[in-house]
Amino acid sequence: MKFRNASLKNVRLSVPFVSGRIQTNHEITIPANLKKCEETGRFRAFQLNWKPGMPDKPHIYWDSDVAKVIEGMSYDEMLYPDAERRKLLDRYVEKIVASAGKDGYLNSYFNGVEPEKRWECLGSNHELYCAGHLMEAAAAYFQATGKRNFLDAMCRYADYIDSVFGKEPGKRRGVPGHEEIELALCKLADVSGNPKYQKLAEYFINDRGTEPNTFDEEQIRLSSEPFTPYMKKEFQAHLPVREQTEAVGHAVRALYLYSGMAELADRTGDPALLRACETLWKSVTEQKMYLTGGIGSIPAGERFGNPWHLPNDFTYVESCAAISVCLFARRMLNITGDGKYADVLERTLCNAVLSGISLDGYHFFYANRFQLDATVEDHLNGTGYSTQREEWFFCSCCPTSFCRFLPQIGSFSYSESADGMRIDIPFAGEVSAGGMDICVKGGYPYDGKITVELLNTPGQRTLSLRIPGWCRKWTLSVNGTECRPALTNGYAELSRSWKAGDQVTLSLEMPVRRVYANPHVTSCSGQTALMRGPLVYVLESADQPGMEFERILLPSDAEFELIPAENLPEGTVALRFQGREEESFPDEVLYREEPPVRKPGTVTLTAIPYALWGNRGKGYMRLWLRTC
Amino acid sequence: MKFRNASLKNVRLSVPFVSGRIQTNHEITIPANLKKCEETGRFRAFQLNWKPGMPDKPHIYWDSDVAKVIEGMSYDEMLYPDAERRKLLDRYVEKIVASAGKDGYLNSYFNGVEPEKRWECLGSNHELYCAGHLMEAAAAYFQATGKRNFLDAMCRYADYIDSVFGKEPGKRRGVPGHEEIELALCKLADVSGNPKYQKLAEYFINDRGTEPNTFDEEQIRLSSEPFTPYMKKEFQAHLPVREQTEAVGHAVRALYLYSGMAELADRTGDPALLRACETLWKSVTEQKMYLTGGIGSIPAGERFGNPWHLPNDFTYVESCAAISVCLFARRMLNITGDGKYADVLERTLCNAVLSGISLDGYHFFYANRFQLDATVEDHLNGTGYSTQREEWFFCSCCPTSFCRFLPQIGSFSYSESADGMRIDIPFAGEVSAGGMDICVKGGYPYDGKITVELLNTPGQRTLSLRIPGWCRKWTLSVNGTECRPALTNGYAELSRSWKAGDQVTLSLEMPVRRVYANPHVTSCSGQTALMRGPLVYVLESADQPGMEFERILLPSDAEFELIPAENLPEGTVALRFQGREEESFPDEVLYREEPPVRKPGTVTLTAIPYALWGNRGKGYMRLWLRTC
Repeated sequence: MKFRNASLKNVRLSVPFVSGRIQTNHEITIPANLKKCEETGRFRAFQLNWKPGMPDKPHIYWDSDVAKVIEGMSYDEMLYPDAERRKLLDRYVEKIVASAGKDGYLNSYFNGVEPEKRWECLGSNHELYCAGHLMEAAAAYFQATGKRNFLDAMCRYADYIDSVFGKEPGKRRGVPGHEEIELALCKLADVSGNPKYQKLAEYFINDRGTEPNTFDEEQIRLSSEPFTPYMKKEFQAHLPVREQTEAVGHAVRALYLYSGMAELADRTGDPALLRACETLWKSVTEQKMYLTGGIGSIPAGERFGNPWHLPNDFTYVESCAAISVCLFARRMLNITGDGKYADVLERTLCNAVLSGISLDGYHFFYANRFQLDATVEDHLNGTGYSTQREEWFFCSCCPTSFCRFLPQIGSFSYSESADGMRIDIPFAGEVSAGGMDICVKGGYPYDGKITVELLNTPGQRTLSLRIPGWCRKWTLSVNGTECRPALTNGYAELSRSWKAGDQVTLSLEMPVRRVYANPHVTSCSGQTALMRGPLVYVLESADQPGMEFERILLPSDAEFELIPAENLPEGTVALRFQGREEESFPDEVLYREEPPVRKPGTVTLTAIPYALWGNRGKGYMRLWLRTC
Repeated sequence: MKFRNASLKNVRLSVPFVSGRIQTNHEITIPANLKKCEETGRFRAFQLNWKPGMPDKPHIYWDSDVAKVIEGMSYDEMLYPDAERRKLLDRYVEKIVASAGKDGYLNSYFNGVEPEKRWECLGSNHELYCAGHLMEAAAAYFQATGKRNFLDAMCRYADYIDSVFGKEPGKRRGVPGHEEIELALCKLADVSGNPKYQKLAEYFINDRGTEPNTFDEEQIRLSSEPFTPYMKKEFQAHLPVREQTEAVGHAVRALYLYSGMAELADRTGDPALLRACETLWKSVTEQKMYLTGGIGSIPAGERFGNPWHLPNDFTYVESCAAISVCLFARRMLNITGDGKYADVLERTLCNAVLSGISLDGYHFFYANRFQLDATVEDHLNGTGYSTQREEWFFCSCCPTSFCRFLPQIGSFSYSESADGMRIDIPFAGEVSAGGMDICVKGGYPYDGKITVELLNTPGQRTLSLRIPGWCRKWTLSVNGTECRPALTNGYAELSRSWKAGDQVTLSLEMPVRRVYANPHVTSCSGQTALMRGPLVYVLESADQPGMEFERILLPSDAEFELIPAENLPEGTVALRFQGREEESFPDEVLYREEPPVRKPGTVTLTAIPYALWGNRGKGYMRLWLRTC
């Protein structure tokens, strides 16, 4: 049975862990991003009247920021219809649409500032990337409003792009340096009903990394030298996509590509493309992923490192990259129905994604860390490498990615098929999908007990519930009667004739788990991470002011008490336990022959979910704990 | 009693640990660097006839490379006089001298390529830096040959610089972005006998970091914005030098500055300048120095990190920076006579410096690592970040630094005063200094027993022998009679009337020592380093092929056997001991709940000196060993 995401507007989440974020996005994050797009000139750029000497010179990637906010506003409009907000949205869209050239080309930088450079550098000029985000925005706007103006403009743009690029005679070969349009063209095909756009996506996927390499030709034209293998890997253009086996280069580009490949594999059934997706999935998740689901460890080139290169302090691990993991995971889940993809989706969403934005909705991490202590530089504010979340960035992809991703959490958590509904992540809320209307209750991910009540009488349907990979013990009952179906791909499937008032109860045992990294991950040697359910836990200064976590040891027999977290949203579960502490060295002693000494007695420690760190003032943080 | 370096030509070292390197420099490294300077156009640039379109466009820092090779050849000529080599040296010098402008300005790039940009950008254009290295080369050439042509040219250049820069009316304020000329002007003052040059050095030292900041003015002129605090720190121009307390910014620049400050403090007796040197010394050595003596952990900006930021895998720790530590340490030793400076000098020389060059003399590290494993990138060859030593670099400061530093090892190891000789590092050899001619025997640093035989009859003199800070037990005897003088600043002073044939024997107990880092150094948490004498030991693949050092544990009760190292220079002492090994995880398991398991039994491990790693083929290496 083939499942697809539940419709965004039919999942109304209520559990604060996620619904709080979705609502803050509506109230704070989207307005704040609109304001920044206004202030920085991003909207103004579509007037195409910037002249040298004027402030706020447009930038080649600005359109993508605007597009992502528009896309987010459109989703948000489906969840929180608002006439005033809608008027604003319409106005922005009209401005964007009005900026299109006669031939359909729509790009505020290359239409307004350097028209002679159109398509000059596919590797770095982000035109197809911006086009992709605009197409996604247009599809979302059409879905939210039914208005065709933006969609029609983007179809004209796509038609024009299709007339330029391809293998057919008279067309130019070339693929984007920053992938994204592949996914977008598939959405455009769906929303417009025109399969030509999917064909164009196929072209962009299939021609990447083939020889003669179009990036080499372009680079020779621009700088007289072909690309280095290093740069080709940065763009995932070192091999044809079906021959790629290792996740390399720019992490966001890579995962956007893999998501596009998965999208096409799903649509075309191409077995070689699916095999490549599966191989790349293994490369990402088995060798290059942080425990939180974050990826892309290396700052230079925003890049994947070698397998097992996962440092904790000086990291990159861009917030956008975490979101892109969800895009890939969700598509692999749609193709295969295998719960292992939902496991990674859930872990990434609940840790790497949500930690990228503050609870107040105003502040964002670009780079994400797993260890913040006195040795980590704090002079890089404003560069994206900051140790604190910031309001905006010169390249502000991460804030705008949250605008568009947060409203989609519901549709990433529930699925539907012709036969019924699947609960991938049992966040509480009301969901209509696959002919079933349900109300899900419970405090997941803090509480493993989930009750599902049927609100309608859909008759014979299948309700599938995921038993997470992290869960060792679970019970399931229908109307009070325990049942234990064999799992299919990690899902318990309940097929029966459902009626309103039927109640399903799933209890997932959720002990605190100690997790160890492969010894190849040298940054985690001799250390232990704490997880409970899908959540990764960390120590931070707010709960133990002034403590130097590098001197803290987690005893192998420590016991954990669940307590309410302080000054975090109601319901947040913290872990309290007794640790040991090493004596400090005198500050002037850098090396010595006397080994560190453990202090007598214990220290009381409190760990909170990684997703919520950095919301209670400046301080230190540590995920992997030294063990004794 | 005031000591100064022994004269370079009066220290003839014979112990292979260092004499092998000095001889290889003569036979291999200097010729190889000359060839590279020829091939790359660095010598040709002094013809000032490069035109656009021609190959090998000169570069702003090329003169410094040439100067350092000329300086090294001059020292080398004092140790290994060679008529053919001398002719070559004279010819190169004539070419350089002939390139001087009428006003004395001498710079192959700005005289030949962009004359209109002279002094345009003191922050980044390296003119005063190149001038400094040329001055040092001219001083060395004069000392080696007695020929005045280069010296005179550089005095003219210095006169011209003095006419341009300073606080006097009609002069321009400005200090170099890359320090070096401060040291060089002091040498020029000594060799020329003209104190004006020392005054100019004082100006460059004293005007750095003062307000209004000349770098701000320059930056506003060039880019309309003042420097960021980050960039001012990069150049150590954030505060007047006497107010600087933390070592920041580009590590080589910083240590060149501190060396120049120490040189001037020594000459002028300025107490505030000496205090600043002492404070900065503490910052470097107590918070920012690797165990090997290496410094400058951060690649971006070749920079010092925060205190205790000393990662082992992705490091910078430039070879030039290690050499610059020796320059500073030796000057602080000259001022204070305190053996603690010799301790750092010795540790840095014997580890961080000598590891930067291969035993074959052909290959160099730019960046130095302390942990090389499967996770460390290996695709950066040719960039300076390589995991293997390379023959040359686009910016080839490190190879040329070895050319000039290696011949000076003897004069860094022995000192003289009006009253006698001081042995700072007892490398075997024949030394004439302070009126005493001695023959030093022993295998130091592999053997702690050193015998000193008087070769002349100097009468009443003081022979001082350093008792290293790492040494807990030592015995000293004169002509077979044990004596135990109280130590002065870490030195045992023997004052008597000496005669030929007198024999002093110093025995330094040299057990294997376990060393632990301050817990703030999180990269070393739970790990132990092995040292013996001044040498840091490491595991490398050549001695235990295929072993994954991240799974190796050093038991707290391990015993060490001294064995001859395999395929390393005769006399090299290796350490053999029994370690434990953890089971590997299956490669596809990145995280799991079962803790790592220790294998039964032990594994035999062999550690070699860090200075010699990477000379026996490609492989992995590890300095800090996990402990059990």
